[in-house]
Amino acid sequence: MGAEQARRSRITPEREAELYGAVLDLLREVGYDALTMDAVAARTRSSKATLYRQWGGKAELVVKALRQQKPHFDEIDTGTLRGDLHATARREDDCHMEQNSALMRGLMVAVHADPDLLQAFREWIVEPEMSALDRMLRRAVERGEVSPDNPALGYVIHMLVGAFATRTLIDELPPTQAYLASYIDAVVLPALGA
Amino acid sequence: MGAEQARRSRITPEREAELYGAVLDLLREVGYDALTMDAVAARTRSSKATLYRQWGGKAELVVKALRQQKPHFDEIDTGTLRGDLHATARREDDCHMEQNSALMRGLMVAVHADPDLLQAFREWIVEPEMSALDRMLRRAVERGEVSPDNPALGYVIHMLVGAFATRTLIDELPPTQAYLASYIDAVVLPALGA
Repeated sequence: MGAEQARRSRITPEREAELYGAVLDLLREVGYDALTMDAVAARTRSSKATLYRQWGGKAELVVKALRQQKPHFDEIDTGTLRGDLHATARREDDCHMEQNSALMRGLMVAVHADPDLLQAFREWIVEPEMSALDRMLRRAVERGEVSPDNPALGYVIHMLVGAFATRTLIDELPPTQAYLASYIDAVVLPALGA
Repeated sequence: MGAEQARRSRITPEREAELYGAVLDLLREVGYDALTMDAVAARTRSSKATLYRQWGGKAELVVKALRQQKPHFDEIDTGTLRGDLHATARREDDCHMEQNSALMRGLMVAVHADPDLLQAFREWIVEPEMSALDRMLRRAVERGEVSPDNPALGYVIHMLVGAFATRTLIDELPPTQAYLASYIDAVVLPALGA
Protein backbone atom coordinates (compact mmCIF):
# COMPACT_ATOMS: atom_id res chain seq x y z
CA MET A 1 0.00 0.00 0.00
CA GLY A 2 2.95 2.41 0.54
CA ALA A 3 3.58 3.68 -2.98
CA GLU A 4 -0.12 3.61 -3.79
CA GLN A 5 -0.94 5.68 -0.71
CA ALA A 6 1.77 8.20 -1.55
CA ARG A 7 0.44 8.63 -5.09
CA ARG A 8 -3.13 8.98 -3.86
CA SER A 9 -2.46 11.41 -1.08
CA ARG A 10 -1.81 14.16 -3.61
CA ILE A 11 -5.51 14.75 -4.26
CA THR A 12 -8.45 14.82 -1.85
CA PRO A 13 -11.06 12.05 -1.86
CA GLU A 14 -13.69 14.60 -2.95
CA ARG A 15 -11.60 15.69 -5.91
CA GLU A 16 -10.91 12.04 -6.78
CA ALA A 17 -14.65 11.23 -6.75
CA GLU A 18 -15.35 14.27 -8.93
CA LEU A 19 -12.68 13.15 -11.41
CA TYR A 20 -14.02 9.59 -11.55
CA GLY A 21 -17.53 10.92 -12.17
CA ALA A 22 -16.26 13.01 -15.09
CA VAL A 23 -14.39 10.01 -16.53
CA LEU A 24 -17.55 7.86 -16.44
CA ASP A 25 -19.59 10.66 -18.05
CA LEU A 26 -17.04 10.89 -20.86
CA LEU A 27 -16.96 7.12 -21.22
CA ARG A 28 -20.75 7.05 -21.69
CA GLU A 29 -20.56 9.88 -24.22
CA VAL A 30 -17.75 8.67 -26.48
CA GLY A 31 -16.83 5.07 -25.51
CA TYR A 32 -13.47 3.73 -24.42
CA ASP A 33 -11.65 3.85 -27.76
CA ALA A 34 -12.44 7.51 -28.38
CA LEU A 35 -11.77 8.61 -24.81
CA THR A 36 -8.51 10.61 -24.57
CA MET A 37 -6.49 11.84 -21.61
CA ASP A 38 -6.72 15.31 -23.21
CA ALA A 39 -10.51 15.17 -22.97
CA VAL A 40 -10.35 14.02 -19.34
CA ALA A 41 -7.89 16.83 -18.53
CA ALA A 42 -10.11 19.43 -20.22
CA ARG A 43 -13.35 18.19 -18.64
CA THR A 44 -11.86 18.04 -15.14
CA ARG A 45 -9.61 21.12 -15.46
CA SER A 46 -6.55 19.03 -14.50
CA SER A 47 -3.18 18.82 -16.17
CA LYS A 48 -2.39 15.70 -18.15
CA ALA A 49 0.81 15.36 -16.10
CA THR A 50 -1.27 15.07 -12.92
CA LEU A 51 -3.52 12.44 -14.49
CA TYR A 52 -0.58 10.34 -15.67
CA ARG A 53 1.24 10.70 -12.33
CA GLN A 54 -1.84 9.69 -10.38
CA TRP A 55 -3.16 6.89 -12.60
CA GLY A 56 -0.42 5.82 -14.98
CA GLY A 57 -2.72 5.84 -18.01
CA LYS A 58 -6.19 5.64 -19.48
CA ALA A 59 -6.81 1.96 -18.68
CA GLU A 60 -6.09 2.35 -14.95
CA LEU A 61 -8.04 5.62 -14.73
CA VAL A 62 -11.15 4.15 -16.36
CA VAL A 63 -11.08 0.92 -14.37
CA LYS A 64 -10.60 2.71 -11.05
CA ALA A 65 -13.44 5.09 -11.93
CA LEU A 66 -15.67 2.06 -12.52
CA ARG A 67 -14.55 0.40 -9.32
CA GLN A 68 -14.97 3.49 -7.16
CA GLN A 69 -18.62 4.06 -7.93
CA LYS A 70 -19.73 0.75 -6.41
CA PRO A 71 -19.81 0.06 -2.67
CA HIS A 72 -17.30 -2.69 -2.02
CA PHE A 73 -18.38 -6.24 -1.46
CA ASP A 74 -16.33 -6.44 1.71
CA GLU A 75 -18.73 -4.19 3.58
CA ILE A 76 -21.47 -6.82 3.17
CA ASP A 77 -21.92 -9.40 5.96
CA THR A 78 -25.55 -9.96 6.90
CA GLY A 79 -25.18 -13.34 8.60
CA THR A 80 -26.87 -15.44 5.89
CA LEU A 81 -25.88 -16.27 2.32
CA ARG A 82 -29.26 -15.17 1.01
CA GLY A 83 -28.93 -11.86 2.84
CA ASP A 84 -25.40 -11.35 1.51
CA LEU A 85 -26.34 -12.11 -2.10
CA HIS A 86 -29.42 -9.89 -1.99
CA ALA A 87 -27.33 -7.06 -0.49
CA THR A 88 -24.82 -7.57 -3.32
CA ALA A 89 -27.62 -7.17 -5.87
CA ARG A 90 -28.67 -3.93 -4.16
CA ARG A 91 -25.24 -2.28 -4.32
CA GLU A 92 -26.33 -0.21 -7.32
CA ASP A 93 -29.72 1.41 -7.74
CA ASP A 94 -31.66 0.60 -10.92
CA CYS A 95 -30.71 3.82 -12.65
CA HIS A 96 -26.98 3.19 -12.18
CA MET A 97 -27.36 -0.45 -13.10
CA GLU A 98 -28.94 0.44 -16.44
CA GLN A 99 -26.21 2.98 -17.21
CA ASN A 100 -23.51 0.52 -16.23
CA SER A 101 -24.97 -2.30 -18.24
CA ALA A 102 -24.50 -0.18 -21.40
CA LEU A 103 -21.00 0.88 -20.28
CA MET A 104 -19.92 -2.69 -19.59
CA ARG A 105 -21.09 -3.92 -22.99
CA GLY A 106 -18.82 -1.35 -24.61
CA LEU A 107 -15.91 -2.16 -22.31
CA MET A 108 -16.15 -5.92 -22.81
CA VAL A 109 -15.11 -5.51 -26.42
CA ALA A 110 -12.43 -2.90 -25.69
CA VAL A 111 -11.03 -5.21 -22.99
CA HIS A 112 -10.37 -7.98 -25.47
CA ALA A 113 -8.65 -5.67 -27.95
CA ASP A 114 -6.48 -3.83 -25.39
CA PRO A 115 -4.11 -5.81 -23.12
CA ASP A 116 -3.56 -2.83 -20.74
CA LEU A 117 -7.27 -2.44 -20.19
CA LEU A 118 -7.73 -6.20 -19.76
CA GLN A 119 -4.97 -6.32 -17.16
CA ALA A 120 -6.31 -3.29 -15.25
CA PHE A 121 -9.83 -4.70 -15.43
CA ARG A 122 -8.71 -8.01 -13.98
CA GLU A 123 -6.53 -6.44 -11.30
CA TRP A 124 -8.94 -3.77 -10.08
CA ILE A 125 -12.40 -5.23 -10.76
CA VAL A 126 -12.48 -8.98 -11.48
CA GLU A 127 -9.98 -10.14 -8.84
CA PRO A 128 -11.19 -7.99 -5.90
CA GLU A 129 -14.83 -8.93 -6.63
CA MET A 130 -13.93 -12.62 -6.92
CA SER A 131 -11.96 -12.73 -3.70
CA ALA A 132 -14.69 -10.85 -1.79
CA LEU A 133 -17.23 -13.31 -3.21
CA ASP A 134 -14.99 -16.20 -2.16
CA ARG A 135 -14.94 -14.89 1.41
CA MET A 136 -18.74 -14.53 1.35
CA LEU A 137 -19.11 -18.13 0.15
CA ARG A 138 -16.55 -19.41 2.67
CA ARG A 139 -18.60 -17.89 5.49
CA ALA A 140 -21.70 -19.69 4.13
CA VAL A 141 -19.78 -22.98 4.06
CA GLU A 142 -18.53 -22.39 7.62
CA ARG A 143 -22.09 -21.70 8.80
CA GLY A 144 -23.15 -25.01 7.20
CA GLU A 145 -25.39 -23.33 4.61
CA VAL A 146 -23.49 -24.80 1.64
CA SER A 147 -21.64 -28.11 1.38
CA PRO A 148 -17.90 -27.50 0.91
CA ASP A 149 -17.81 -29.82 -2.12
CA ASN A 150 -20.81 -28.31 -3.92
CA PRO A 151 -19.62 -27.93 -7.54
CA ALA A 152 -21.68 -24.75 -8.04
CA LEU A 153 -19.34 -22.90 -5.65
CA GLY A 154 -16.92 -22.40 -8.55
CA TYR A 155 -19.62 -20.88 -10.76
CA VAL A 156 -21.30 -18.27 -8.54
CA ILE A 157 -19.44 -15.43 -10.24
CA HIS A 158 -20.44 -16.79 -13.68
CA MET A 159 -24.07 -16.97 -12.55
CA LEU A 160 -24.11 -13.39 -11.23
CA VAL A 161 -22.22 -11.76 -14.10
CA GLY A 162 -24.15 -13.90 -16.59
CA ALA A 163 -27.51 -12.79 -15.14
CA PHE A 164 -26.45 -9.15 -15.40
CA ALA A 165 -24.99 -9.46 -18.90
CA THR A 166 -27.81 -11.42 -20.56
CA ARG A 167 -30.82 -9.41 -19.34
CA THR A 168 -30.80 -6.73 -22.04
CA LEU A 169 -30.12 -9.03 -24.96
CA ILE A 170 -32.61 -11.73 -24.01
CA ASP A 171 -35.45 -9.76 -22.47
CA GLU A 172 -35.01 -6.26 -23.94
CA LEU A 173 -34.99 -5.01 -20.35
CA PRO A 174 -32.20 -3.47 -18.28
CA PRO A 175 -31.00 -5.50 -15.28
CA THR A 176 -32.68 -4.29 -12.08
CA GLN A 177 -32.40 -5.07 -8.37
CA ALA A 178 -35.71 -6.99 -8.52
CA TYR A 179 -34.55 -9.09 -11.48
CA LEU A 180 -31.23 -9.96 -9.80
CA ALA A 181 -33.00 -10.81 -6.53
CA SER A 182 -35.38 -13.13 -8.39
CA TYR A 183 -32.43 -14.76 -10.23
CA ILE A 184 -30.59 -15.29 -6.94
CA ASP A 185 -33.63 -17.03 -5.42
CA ALA A 186 -34.50 -19.08 -8.52
CA VAL A 187 -31.00 -20.08 -9.67
CA VAL A 188 -28.04 -19.24 -7.43
CA LEU A 189 -29.35 -20.45 -4.06
CA PRO A 190 -30.94 -23.68 -5.42
CA ALA A 191 -27.74 -24.51 -7.36
CA LEU A 192 -25.82 -24.08 -4.09
CA GLY A 193 -28.38 -26.25 -2.28
CA ALA A 194 -28.90 -23.33 0.14
CA MET B 1 -42.35 -19.86 -45.89
CA GLY B 2 -43.50 -19.08 -49.48
CA ALA B 3 -41.63 -15.85 -50.19
CA GLU B 4 -38.63 -17.01 -48.17
CA GLN B 5 -38.46 -20.27 -50.14
CA ALA B 6 -38.72 -18.43 -53.44
CA ARG B 7 -35.86 -16.09 -52.49
CA ARG B 8 -33.72 -18.97 -51.30
CA SER B 9 -34.30 -21.25 -54.25
CA ARG B 10 -32.15 -18.99 -56.46
CA ILE B 11 -28.90 -20.38 -55.06
CA THR B 12 -27.93 -23.93 -54.17
CA PRO B 13 -27.48 -24.98 -50.51
CA GLU B 14 -23.77 -25.61 -51.22
CA ARG B 15 -23.31 -22.11 -52.61
CA GLU B 16 -25.24 -20.67 -49.66
CA ALA B 17 -23.00 -22.52 -47.17
CA GLU B 18 -19.90 -21.28 -49.00
CA LEU B 19 -21.19 -17.71 -48.86
CA TYR B 20 -21.99 -17.91 -45.16
CA GLY B 21 -18.51 -19.28 -44.47
CA ALA B 22 -16.95 -16.35 -46.31
CA VAL B 23 -19.13 -13.86 -44.40
CA LEU B 24 -18.01 -15.34 -41.05
CA ASP B 25 -14.35 -15.26 -42.14
CA LEU B 26 -14.70 -11.59 -43.05
CA LEU B 27 -16.52 -10.87 -39.81
CA ARG B 28 -13.63 -12.38 -37.81
CA GLU B 29 -11.11 -10.38 -39.83
CA VAL B 30 -12.66 -6.90 -39.74
CA GLY B 31 -15.60 -6.93 -37.29
CA TYR B 32 -19.22 -6.03 -37.98
CA ASP B 33 -18.86 -2.27 -38.34
CA ALA B 34 -16.11 -2.48 -40.96
CA LEU B 35 -17.75 -5.32 -42.91
CA THR B 36 -19.17 -4.07 -46.23
CA MET B 37 -21.40 -5.71 -48.82
CA ASP B 38 -18.68 -4.78 -51.36
CA ALA B 39 -16.16 -6.89 -49.45
CA VAL B 40 -18.61 -9.81 -49.24
CA ALA B 41 -19.31 -9.53 -52.98
CA ALA B 42 -15.58 -9.47 -53.80
CA ARG B 43 -14.68 -12.34 -51.47
CA THR B 44 -17.49 -14.56 -52.73
CA ARG B 45 -17.35 -13.47 -56.37
CA SER B 46 -21.06 -12.53 -56.27
CA SER B 47 -22.79 -9.36 -57.41
CA LYS B 48 -24.00 -6.97 -54.74
CA ALA B 49 -27.42 -7.07 -56.42
CA THR B 50 -27.60 -10.83 -55.75
CA LEU B 51 -26.60 -10.37 -52.13
CA TYR B 52 -29.23 -7.68 -51.54
CA ARG B 53 -31.92 -9.65 -53.36
CA GLN B 54 -31.16 -12.78 -51.36
CA TRP B 55 -30.60 -11.25 -47.94
CA GLY B 56 -31.95 -7.72 -47.90
CA GLY B 57 -28.87 -6.31 -46.21
CA LYS B 58 -25.80 -6.77 -44.08
CA ALA B 59 -27.61 -7.42 -40.79
CA GLU B 60 -29.72 -10.27 -42.19
CA LEU B 61 -26.76 -11.77 -44.06
CA VAL B 62 -24.51 -11.81 -40.98
CA VAL B 63 -27.16 -13.17 -38.65
CA LYS B 64 -28.18 -15.94 -41.05
CA ALA B 65 -24.52 -16.86 -41.52
CA LEU B 66 -24.20 -17.20 -37.74
CA ARG B 67 -27.39 -19.21 -37.48
CA GLN B 68 -26.56 -21.55 -40.32
CA GLN B 69 -23.30 -22.82 -38.88
CA LYS B 70 -24.93 -24.35 -35.81
CA PRO B 71 -27.01 -27.54 -35.88
CA HIS B 72 -30.52 -26.57 -34.88
CA PHE B 73 -31.85 -27.24 -31.43
CA ASP B 74 -34.94 -28.88 -32.83
CA GLU B 75 -33.00 -31.94 -33.92
CA ILE B 76 -32.17 -32.70 -30.26
CA ASP B 77 -34.50 -35.06 -28.35
CA THR B 78 -32.64 -37.63 -26.28
CA GLY B 79 -35.46 -38.55 -23.89
CA THR B 80 -34.00 -36.87 -20.78
CA LEU B 81 -33.42 -33.23 -19.89
CA ARG B 82 -29.80 -33.92 -18.96
CA GLY B 83 -29.23 -35.67 -22.28
CA ASP B 84 -30.87 -32.81 -24.19
CA LEU B 85 -28.84 -30.09 -22.42
CA HIS B 86 -25.57 -31.96 -22.86
CA ALA B 87 -26.35 -32.49 -26.55
CA THR B 88 -27.03 -28.75 -26.81
CA ALA B 89 -23.58 -28.02 -25.34
CA ARG B 90 -22.03 -30.35 -27.93
CA ARG B 91 -23.57 -28.64 -30.97
CA GLU B 92 -20.29 -26.84 -31.64
CA ASP B 93 -16.84 -28.36 -31.31
CA ASP B 94 -14.34 -26.54 -29.10
CA CYS B 95 -12.54 -24.89 -32.00
CA HIS B 96 -15.74 -23.35 -33.36
CA MET B 97 -16.87 -22.38 -29.86
CA GLU B 98 -13.68 -20.42 -29.25
CA GLN B 99 -13.96 -18.61 -32.59
CA ASN B 100 -17.62 -17.84 -31.99
CA SER B 101 -17.03 -16.58 -28.49
CA ALA B 102 -14.77 -13.85 -29.95
CA LEU B 103 -17.27 -13.13 -32.73
CA MET B 104 -20.17 -12.81 -30.33
CA ARG B 105 -18.34 -10.36 -28.09
CA GLY B 106 -17.87 -8.08 -31.08
CA LEU B 107 -21.46 -8.50 -32.22
CA MET B 108 -22.97 -7.82 -28.80
CA VAL B 109 -21.76 -4.25 -28.98
CA ALA B 110 -22.71 -3.76 -32.63
CA VAL B 111 -26.18 -5.15 -31.83
CA HIS B 112 -26.88 -2.42 -29.32
CA ALA B 113 -25.74 0.35 -31.66
CA ASP B 114 -27.59 -0.92 -34.75
CA PRO B 115 -31.38 -1.48 -34.63
CA ASP B 116 -31.39 -3.51 -37.89
CA LEU B 117 -28.81 -5.92 -36.54
CA LEU B 118 -30.61 -6.16 -33.19
CA GLN B 119 -33.87 -6.98 -34.91
CA ALA B 120 -32.29 -9.58 -37.20
CA PHE B 121 -30.42 -11.08 -34.24
CA ARG B 122 -33.62 -11.42 -32.25
CA GLU B 123 -35.65 -12.76 -35.14
CA TRP B 124 -33.15 -15.31 -36.48
CA ILE B 125 -31.12 -16.33 -33.43
CA VAL B 126 -32.62 -15.38 -30.05
CA GLU B 127 -36.27 -16.26 -30.79
CA PRO B 128 -35.72 -19.60 -32.57
CA GLU B 129 -33.26 -20.74 -29.87
CA MET B 130 -35.64 -19.65 -27.10
CA SER B 131 -38.65 -21.41 -28.56
CA ALA B 132 -36.64 -24.60 -29.19
CA LEU B 133 -35.41 -24.42 -25.58
CA ASP B 134 -39.00 -23.88 -24.39
CA ARG B 135 -40.06 -27.05 -26.20
CA MET B 136 -37.15 -28.96 -24.65
CA LEU B 137 -38.13 -27.76 -21.17
CA ARG B 138 -41.82 -28.47 -21.78
CA ARG B 139 -40.95 -32.09 -22.61
CA ALA B 140 -39.00 -32.30 -19.32
CA VAL B 141 -42.01 -30.94 -17.41
CA GLU B 142 -44.32 -33.41 -19.18
CA ARG B 143 -42.00 -36.28 -18.26
CA GLY B 144 -42.15 -35.12 -14.62
CA GLU B 145 -38.43 -34.20 -14.50
CA VAL B 146 -39.11 -30.55 -13.62
CA SER B 147 -41.98 -29.07 -11.63
CA PRO B 148 -44.11 -26.82 -13.89
CA ASP B 149 -43.90 -23.96 -11.39
CA ASN B 150 -40.10 -24.07 -10.88
CA PRO B 151 -39.03 -20.40 -11.13
CA ALA B 152 -35.69 -21.35 -12.76
CA LEU B 153 -37.59 -22.42 -15.92
CA GLY B 154 -37.65 -18.75 -16.97
CA TYR B 155 -33.89 -18.38 -16.57
CA VAL B 156 -32.45 -21.40 -18.40
CA ILE B 157 -31.52 -19.29 -21.42
CA HIS B 158 -29.82 -16.71 -19.13
CA MET B 159 -27.85 -19.49 -17.44
CA LEU B 160 -26.66 -21.02 -20.71
CA VAL B 161 -25.82 -17.76 -22.50
CA GLY B 162 -24.30 -16.38 -19.29
CA ALA B 163 -22.04 -19.44 -18.87
CA PHE B 164 -20.83 -19.07 -22.46
CA ALA B 165 -20.34 -15.30 -22.25
CA THR B 166 -18.52 -15.09 -18.92
CA ARG B 167 -15.95 -17.87 -19.41
CA THR B 168 -13.29 -15.83 -21.22
CA LEU B 169 -13.53 -12.74 -19.03
CA ILE B 170 -13.57 -14.53 -15.69
CA ASP B 171 -11.30 -17.50 -16.29
CA GLU B 172 -9.14 -16.37 -19.23
CA LEU B 173 -10.24 -19.57 -20.96
CA PRO B 174 -12.45 -20.09 -24.00
CA PRO B 175 -15.79 -21.84 -23.40
CA THR B 176 -15.51 -25.57 -24.22
CA GLN B 177 -17.90 -28.51 -24.37
CA ALA B 178 -16.45 -29.87 -21.09
CA TYR B 179 -16.93 -26.52 -19.32
CA LEU B 180 -20.54 -26.20 -20.49
CA ALA B 181 -21.27 -29.82 -19.49
CA SER B 182 -19.86 -29.17 -16.02
CA TYR B 183 -21.90 -25.94 -15.70
CA ILE B 184 -25.08 -27.76 -16.75
CA ASP B 185 -24.53 -30.43 -14.07
CA ALA B 186 -23.44 -28.01 -11.33
CA VAL B 187 -25.89 -25.15 -11.96
CA VAL B 188 -28.65 -25.67 -14.52
CA LEU B 189 -29.97 -29.09 -13.47
CA PRO B 190 -29.82 -28.41 -9.69
CA ALA B 191 -31.58 -25.04 -10.17
CA LEU B 192 -34.31 -26.89 -12.07
CA GLY B 193 -34.46 -29.53 -9.31
CA ALA B 194 -33.79 -32.16 -11.99
